[in-house]
Amino acid sequence: MSKTEKKSENTLTHFNQQGEAHMVDIGNKDITKRVAVTEGRIFMKAETLQHILEGNNKKGDVLGIARIAGIMGAKKTPDLIPLCHPLSLTHVDISLETQQEPPAVYCKTEVATSGKTGVEMEALNATQVALLTIYDMCKAVDKGMVIDGVRLLKKTGGKSGTWEADA
Amino acid sequence: MSKTEKKSENTLTHFNQQGEAHMVDIGNKDITKRVAVTEGRIFMKAETLQHILEGNNKKGDVLGIARIAGIMGAKKTPDLIPLCHPLSLTHVDISLETQQEPPAVYCKTEVATSGKTGVEMEALNATQVALLTIYDMCKAVDKGMVIDGVRLLKKTGGKSGTWEADA
Amino acid sequence: MSKTEKKSENTLTHFNQQGEAHMVDIGNKDITKRVAVTEGRIFMKAETLQHILEGNNKKGDVLGIARIAGIMGAKKTPDLIPLCHPLSLTHVDISLETQQEPPAVYCKTEVATSGKTGVEMEALNATQVALLTIYDMCKAVDKGMVIDGVRLLKKTGGKSGTWEADA
Amino acid sequence: MSKTEKKSENTLTHFNQQGEAHMVDIGNKDITKRVAVTEGRIFMKAETLQHILEGNNKKGDVLGIARIAGIMGAKKTPDLIPLCHPLSLTHVDISLETQQEPPAVYCKTEVATSGKTGVEMEALNATQVALLTIYDMCKAVDKGMVIDGVRLLKKTGGKSGTWEADA
Amino acid sequence: MSKTEKKSENTLTHFNQQGEAHMVDIGNKDITKRVAVTEGRIFMKAETLQHILEGNNKKGDVLGIARIAGIMGAKKTPDLIPLCHPLSLTHVDISLETQQEPPAVYCKTEVATSGKTGVEMEALNATQVALLTIYDMCKAVDKGMVIDGVRLLKKTGGKSGTWEADA
Amino acid sequence: MSKTEKKSENTLTHFNQQGEAHMVDIGNKDITKRVAVTEGRIFMKAETLQHILEGNNKKGDVLGIARIAGIMGAKKTPDLIPLCHPLSLTHVDISLETQQEPPAVYCKTEVATSGKTGVEMEALNATQVALLTIYDMCKAVDKGMVIDGVRLLKKTGGKSGTWEADA
Repeated sequence: MSKTEKKSENTLTHFNQQGEAHMVDIGNKDITKRVAVTEGRIFMKAETLQHILEGNNKKGDVLGIARIAGIMGAKKTPDLIPLCHPLSLTHVDISLETQQEPPAVYCKTEVATSGKTGVEMEALNATQVALLTIYDMCKAVDKGMVIDGVRLLKKTGGKSGTWEADA
Repeated sequence: MSKTEKKSENTLTHFNQQGEAHMVDIGNKDITKRVAVTEGRIFMKAETLQHILEGNNKKGDVLGIARIAGIMGAKKTPDLIPLCHPLSLTHVDISLETQQEPPAVYCKTEVATSGKTGVEMEALNATQVALLTIYDMCKAVDKGMVIDGVRLLKKTGGKSGTWEADA
Repeated sequence: MSKTEKKSENTLTHFNQQGEAHMVDIGNKDITKRVAVTEGRIFMKAETLQHILEGNNKKGDVLGIARIAGIMGAKKTPDLIPLCHPLSLTHVDISLETQQEPPAVYCKTEVATSGKTGVEMEALNATQVALLTIYDMCKAVDKGMVIDGVRLLKKTGGKSGTWEADA
Repeated sequence: MSKTEKKSENTLTHFNQQGEAHMVDIGNKDITKRVAVTEGRIFMKAETLQHILEGNNKKGDVLGIARIAGIMGAKKTPDLIPLCHPLSLTHVDISLETQQEPPAVYCKTEVATSGKTGVEMEALNATQVALLTIYDMCKAVDKGMVIDGVRLLKKTGGKSGTWEADA
Repeated sequence: MSKTEKKSENTLTHFNQQGEAHMVDIGNKDITKRVAVTEGRIFMKAETLQHILEGNNKKGDVLGIARIAGIMGAKKTPDLIPLCHPLSLTHVDISLETQQEPPAVYCKTEVATSGKTGVEMEALNATQVALLTIYDMCKAVDKGMVIDGVRLLKKTGGKSGTWEADA
Repeated sequence: MSKTEKKSENTLTHFNQQGEAHMVDIGNKDITKRVAVTEGRIFMKAETLQHILEGNNKKGDVLGIARIAGIMGAKKTPDLIPLCHPLSLTHVDISLETQQEPPAVYCKTEVATSGKTGVEMEALNATQVALLTIYDMCKAVDKGMVIDGVRLLKKTGGKSGTWEADA
């Protein structure tokens, strides 16, 4: 599942020895540049995709608004995920591309920080919020859209080093 | 795609006639009971599912924490989704079930309100936040988990009436 | 412990029949005027109380700032308390009085809403935040302050009617 | 009241020389490891404590949810306390223990950061939010619960060094 | 200053009879449709306006992002303004127009609710946040931009009826 | 418009090369002390100013509450401004002065951080929130107040060095 991960993977670190949830102590971890890349898709009817594409040519900019929502969502991650550490993000970039077969919007997010822990959660959350915003903006014409394949593609930095998803 | 929806579906209502985004005027809509049901899954390695199941027998309660995160996430939806109206939710229920083949956790969410607009976004967001919290709590042992199939199953109430997803 | 409460008190309503936490369904409850009154105290050194009293005569207004923090805190209650319903508060009033023997500040809070559920949590949270703000503003001179006796004094409205604490 | 505190304690630092509130300048303070430990209790009827204890054996996990609420509350402290600096917490641990005589839940919180100012406020707030969540989850059976004895036990780190409460 | 306002205007209602701040009791006010319209401008260098206009033709959509920020800002008003009541907004519309002489962007905001109190603060805040977002997005090329003339143009609904600004 | 700024000013940095909005990468910028000073005014009727001045002599402290709102607003800036980086502010100071001709309150804000990017947005936002809070607290007697001249006066720190507004 991973190529270069070295750390032994045998505990859920969000619990202490009594099995109680805590926010893991990262006080002794190094401040390094950490990057996470994630992806996800929202599938829709062909007509819905057509609405999005037409909107982009005018000002009805579904993808532009979803991108902003995703960036703002990245900043709210520690408010949403109970045991996630607050972090000062240094970079968020969200790319949204339409695809025809099957009709969908593909989202790829990159988040970076200089900090003591990784930004996987921020990148995954940004992806989910961006895709959910597309749902919101198109639900008047298509309630059956499905969000799929939200996952981590790659992380770098920190003691555990680089991790990449299987292709 | 829908069984009983009556409203004509030809515009993205989140844009005004100039194609500019706005928060749609719902002032003249009726206050009725509105319910939305959504679902989604997170797929994982068999060992990861095993960790979750063992934790439930002690106090390391991954699913219990994910459920709380999802409920709190439902309340934060208008902070995350730009054009979503603020609503006073009257009920949030999140059910999380493990499945073995393939190894996954299945999330089903029901949200209700007495209000002027529906709660699809709140239910979808709660589902996403619950699943993402599972990712967070298990990522030390499995970074390759995938969130899949997040969608609306059913909505009731309001002028457009009942909508159900295809099976 | 209560004088007029009629409802049978034998379940923790925040759990469903499977014992899983949910946000209780209040959809069928009536919209009535509901009021909650709470109290609490922060005990301190006599010199600390003196600092507060002197500040009030100039512009260093510890109690004024604590009152504002408490009012704003009331509005944030559903963000803090996981299963608390979001409510549109119609009134918040916080009274802060100093006392000499023993040296302390006494806080009494009244919160009201027209809604489907009570505002006990909002009033208790406002009291706690106001008292904690006093701690923050005086901790440079007194780290040993203690917050004590935070409790509900009275609630009115709703199906369960009036409840009052023992004297 | 304190054992090793060296700093002279004669001003409320949250006010400038004109007596106006400001967020104190900590720009020149050192980044050091800072830890705060706090405690508090919620007293209740014996039957209420019994409900909590029974719930823990099934899935109706009052203490587990209170712990999560407290951890999330720690992260929200600068939103609640007006003059509190935003900080990147590196560790939050909340321990909740039941006691029989008198019936109560005891909360002990430890918060740490690597930063320019202490985390007393975060630890005190986490304690208050955890205890208030217990109130919320049990108020259907016991509205007379009382939160008591919320205070700082110990702080370490920073220029003022170690402080410990009297026993 | 007003045409149809009837209420006598002789007290700052955000203070009680002891002169202490409180959140005014609106429990007995009627639920009516209430609308507020506000305006404001940001003045800038001619080259900065040119950047904004060129961006609109591609995807670098300063005004589109400012509009979204303003709408989201409207929803956050009770978090920012201490004594402002939380309200369920039913409509937010932000219009942004560029003007050449002198170079500026003009913002006009309309907010509506069905509620017990008005939405002037929400509309003014949305205007300020939209204009400040334009500052943020253009500050790399023009730090000297000035936000000017933020004011209420009109309010309707409620006991005090219609109010309009002088021309 | 600027005296010492060195950086060439020809791009809106909040867009990438495809013209899509992103949160600019500041990962390679130095951590330095950064300060921003901003100003703004709210103009009002003479009677309104009189109300504010009388309130200050008792406890109805409009300016004290506005100052607290501004400080808390500074901390919320990254929640409001979409592409603004989250920052750990080290100092916020808000000065509010009344003036008679014409009747107004003048606000001057200073914000500092040790960080990788500047705090202009935090200082501008704090100024706007403080002035808007004055509007809220006085709107019962004066709906025609106008917020004017909100701008950056000076920034120091970072690669671009010192910038000062024209007098």
